[in-house]
Amino acid sequence: MTLLELARKEGKAKVAIAARVDGVVTDLARPLPDGAKVEWVLPSDPDGVEILRHSTAHVMAAAVKELFPEALITIGPAIENGFYYDFDVETPFTPEDLVRIEERMREIVKADHPFVREEATKEQARILFPGEPYKEELLAAIPDETVSLYRMGNFLDLCRGPHVPGTGRVGAFHLMNTAGAYWRGDSRNKMLTRVYGIAFASKKELDEHLRILEEIKRRDHRKIGRELDLFSVTDDIGPGLILWHPKGSVVRRVMEDFWRDEHAKAGYDLVFSPHIARLDLWRISGHTDFYRQAMFSPIDIEGQEYQLKPMNCPFHIQIYKSRMRSYRDLPIRYAELGTVYRYEPSGTLHGLLRVRGFTQDDAHLFLRPDQLDEEIFTLLDFTLFVLRAFGFERYDIYLSTRPEKYAGSPEQWDQAESALRKALERKGLPFEVDPGEGVFYGPKIDIKIKDMLGRSWQCSTIQVDFNNPERFNATYVADDGTPRRAIMIHRALMGSLERFFGVLVEHYAGAFPVWLAPVQADVVPVTEKQNAFAREAVTKLRAGGFRAEGDYRNEKLGYKIRESQVKKVPYALVVGEREMEAQMVSPRRRGGEQLPPMPIEAFIERLRGEAVNRTE
Amino acid sequence: MTLLELARKEGKAKVAIAARVDGVVTDLARPLPDGAKVEWVLPSDPDGVEILRHSTAHVMAAAVKELFPEALITIGPAIENGFYYDFDVETPFTPEDLVRIEERMREIVKADHPFVREEATKEQARILFPGEPYKEELLAAIPDETVSLYRMGNFLDLCRGPHVPGTGRVGAFHLMNTAGAYWRGDSRNKMLTRVYGIAFASKKELDEHLRILEEIKRRDHRKIGRELDLFSVTDDIGPGLILWHPKGSVVRRVMEDFWRDEHAKAGYDLVFSPHIARLDLWRISGHTDFYRQAMFSPIDIEGQEYQLKPMNCPFHIQIYKSRMRSYRDLPIRYAELGTVYRYEPSGTLHGLLRVRGFTQDDAHLFLRPDQLDEEIFTLLDFTLFVLRAFGFERYDIYLSTRPEKYAGSPEQWDQAESALRKALERKGLPFEVDPGEGVFYGPKIDIKIKDMLGRSWQCSTIQVDFNNPERFNATYVADDGTPRRAIMIHRALMGSLERFFGVLVEHYAGAFPVWLAPVQADVVPVTEKQNAFAREAVTKLRAGGFRAEGDYRNEKLGYKIRESQVKKVPYALVVGEREMEAQMVSPRRRGGEQLPPMPIEAFIERLRGEAVNRTE
Repeated sequence: MTLLELARKEGKAKVAIAARVDGVVTDLARPLPDGAKVEWVLPSDPDGVEILRHSTAHVMAAAVKELFPEALITIGPAIENGFYYDFDVETPFTPEDLVRIEERMREIVKADHPFVREEATKEQARILFPGEPYKEELLAAIPDETVSLYRMGNFLDLCRGPHVPGTGRVGAFHLMNTAGAYWRGDSRNKMLTRVYGIAFASKKELDEHLRILEEIKRRDHRKIGRELDLFSVTDDIGPGLILWHPKGSVVRRVMEDFWRDEHAKAGYDLVFSPHIARLDLWRISGHTDFYRQAMFSPIDIEGQEYQLKPMNCPFHIQIYKSRMRSYRDLPIRYAELGTVYRYEPSGTLHGLLRVRGFTQDDAHLFLRPDQLDEEIFTLLDFTLFVLRAFGFERYDIYLSTRPEKYAGSPEQWDQAESALRKALERKGLPFEVDPGEGVFYGPKIDIKIKDMLGRSWQCSTIQVDFNNPERFNATYVADDGTPRRAIMIHRALMGSLERFFGVLVEHYAGAFPVWLAPVQADVVPVTEKQNAFAREAVTKLRAGGFRAEGDYRNEKLGYKIRESQVKKVPYALVVGEREMEAQMVSPRRRGGEQLPPMPIEAFIERLRGEAVNRTE
Repeated sequence: MTLLELARKEGKAKVAIAARVDGVVTDLARPLPDGAKVEWVLPSDPDGVEILRHSTAHVMAAAVKELFPEALITIGPAIENGFYYDFDVETPFTPEDLVRIEERMREIVKADHPFVREEATKEQARILFPGEPYKEELLAAIPDETVSLYRMGNFLDLCRGPHVPGTGRVGAFHLMNTAGAYWRGDSRNKMLTRVYGIAFASKKELDEHLRILEEIKRRDHRKIGRELDLFSVTDDIGPGLILWHPKGSVVRRVMEDFWRDEHAKAGYDLVFSPHIARLDLWRISGHTDFYRQAMFSPIDIEGQEYQLKPMNCPFHIQIYKSRMRSYRDLPIRYAELGTVYRYEPSGTLHGLLRVRGFTQDDAHLFLRPDQLDEEIFTLLDFTLFVLRAFGFERYDIYLSTRPEKYAGSPEQWDQAESALRKALERKGLPFEVDPGEGVFYGPKIDIKIKDMLGRSWQCSTIQVDFNNPERFNATYVADDGTPRRAIMIHRALMGSLERFFGVLVEHYAGAFPVWLAPVQADVVPVTEKQNAFAREAVTKLRAGGFRAEGDYRNEKLGYKIRESQVKKVPYALVVGEREMEAQMVSPRRRGGEQLPPMPIEAFIERLRGEAVNRTE
């Protein structure tokens, strides 16, 4: 009896696309071994959707071979959300070609060709792929004598499987785009044409995925950054180096002010440090050993080598060390919006999210061991307060523990790991442990924030450091008069202002809440007769500390309101004849919602509430 | 008749120390030429005090030769505030030697030896300086055949003169210190011992000068910086690179916030730009040609040269050029607290006043020609507002005009110079014209601020630039639709935050006014019984937005108040039993003035008034 027959018997033939036999996923066409434990694999299972995607890749390759017989086939695996297949063709496929291929695929699906597994010796197999040099190469690389093949209609491919029983069983799919890809990922090999497709168990899931892709495109911070004139990267300055334009700089300043105020309240001392230092400083810190590849080349000053800083820590340690510290002085917390420069290959740079120069919202804490528990808890609490202020309520949290090679003693690690763990538990935060994934200098908590689309962004990090206090001999005088080594914590909440701003832009799709918005209210007179009254409203808003602009142009009201909406200004305050008479403004939210007319003073109070609460 | 006889006749012999004969200053011992116009030179005249100082140098050399006959004499000119004389001696003079020399000088003065001018041929003169090789060398360098000598007691020196009639006529003097100085300032020559002295017409002036020197020492920002823990420079980081410590950073943050807020109000757009850019950007701007010596060596990134920025201008121009600008958009004003790095030889570095990395309070304005007059006037007004806010009310102002080589047209220069001049006149500000001293790219106004001791510090500059808009082709679309070149203005008000902070520290001798003070009020409980009440006061002050600290140590009240005064905290709020009972605090100014007890809320209101008005 085959598995398919068993499935029919159990009424599962319509839903199962494969089976897990004693834990191994396999084709339904295979025989049912005696006494085996069988579970049915559905298209919605993780294993199932992968089979579905891989089978769809075969269907695509079959369609390509029918339409473009001269195309040479290579490999076509399942990937996240879909699949690809690499072809060697004279000219890459055009978008029109993709439409034709997809149509042909649908015909193959309709025909419901069964996927038939065959086995052959490598020698036999070689004969089965005439004029397909890539398959020959793949065969040569397989160590086994026997290989498996899958036949589907006229299309045969070298493949481990498993596959769906027949092409009728592949789910919803769509071809997305093509890209160049070197054979075997090696730039010395020929450039192939890769066709990407997406595939899901249901049309609903596919549509949802397409919607998210559209949404990601719509929210792309580079696109919004251009449209709202927030920032730019120019070739004259260099890739990965950000120019903050006025509108983006307003948001940055709000971010910075909030950050500085809250840090001062939380007992941090603000400091400022230079962007270069003698290379020797980085020798002491060890960065020249373990961080060299991320550092730019040194600068020569009077025969001495200086280094553009990749980190702020050694500077803060220098301030700590500038005088004797007593156990009574600790904890000391130095915070700096410190701009650092790190090498990233130009190919990996991406808008604000991956750059070469960025401003860390950095802080370094110097503690006694007995302060670790309380300090880390307070710090975690503070971190979440800051992230929530910016509208991020969902996180993926990781605790990374002692790796094989480490600085400090096992006891110190245990104490620090326990402090991190206890803080997470006390806050009731779910987290994953990454065993052995701590940096060599100490254990850490990483917090990834989840944005509106559920995407995760690594931002906050809390890292214990046993290494730097030793390298720099950062001590304090204990209550018994002896010098003791301080424990250091590195931490960044937003991570980098540039990156965090990029995430914010995508999270809000440029429609920033009132407290962050570059312009908070546009005052829009209906005709020029209300210009003077509108100017008064702008003056009052500005005197109240708000960012307001007036649109006094001789344009239609609808046009002006549309422009305000395009710029994603939270409120447009319409001022017509009636409003002027009543000494009021008619606020209109950027979403379209109309509020009742109110005196400008009342609107200012409303705005103040929204800004203070960081809502809206 | 000699001039001295004429002076006696005119009753001027007691006041005149020399005479100006037909405009030439000369000894009183010289004969009165027929029909010459004679003016008497008094010790208080600029020429007179110089003669006085130079004669005092001779008196010092005579004293040295008497006490240290083996000392070889060289030269001894008058300098600002005094004189020096260089000697070749085996071992440099000790402070005790200086005391002995000064005593011997007083004896010589008391003896009132006449200064006698003699003339000799060079050959004769050579015989008169046996064993004085430096004099021989000096003689050899004189082109004339006849030289003049001055004899005073047993001391003879080669000298042009003129001198006071006799040693009794030198004024008040004091020997200050010694220093090494190469013969003829050439490091290949022997190192001589230079003795510095100060000399004035009156004891009163000398004492005043000594007082100012003491005051300068007392106000030295490096000393105060250390005492108040404001900043440091460490060898590990490198000379000229400033670490701002927490207390200094508080002041910096207040400066920055004030600056940003006022710039936003004044219609500036804040921007942020990176600290490096492709070297090519500096080729376009021309800095690689005319500014290379101040630029650090380039950094290599993926085979491209990058430059640590010495200027912010090219970045702001890039933002300006990131979109098309219309005549209606101008003026555009970009402001940035931009940290730049410039090479200075390590020998010239000085605390915060001369550094290698500093933050310019920079702005670049882009204008139409018709906006120049009004914009420059507004800018000048704004500059003075900012300087006054920091307590600087007195200025030396310079207008620098077109040099021989210049960018732009003579008409443009005329217009710009006239705009600068008109603005100064309209503000009623006295200024000096430095003809031809403008930078090649445009005319400028430089404002030097005068501190508490009357010293001038170059801070503000307003520079018109015709060059950069051309090099970068920065244009706007005029009302007729054609592209026109914008006019650019570079300006900095404080100049550099580091330098301005250094000047502020010396201006206030570390006793910052309330709005700038790192800590604004210390709350000082008399005994531990008042600690809880004191903590409440601190909490209220902080909630009110003030920087307050509490001193809860079990120390005597006097000790705690003295410490608060040493830290120059504007107010100490004493809280004793009586205060606690009455729910009040007793404020005490750092100068010692006692204010009547008042509720903490009343004190907060008082403090708010002082902070807002930037007084006290």
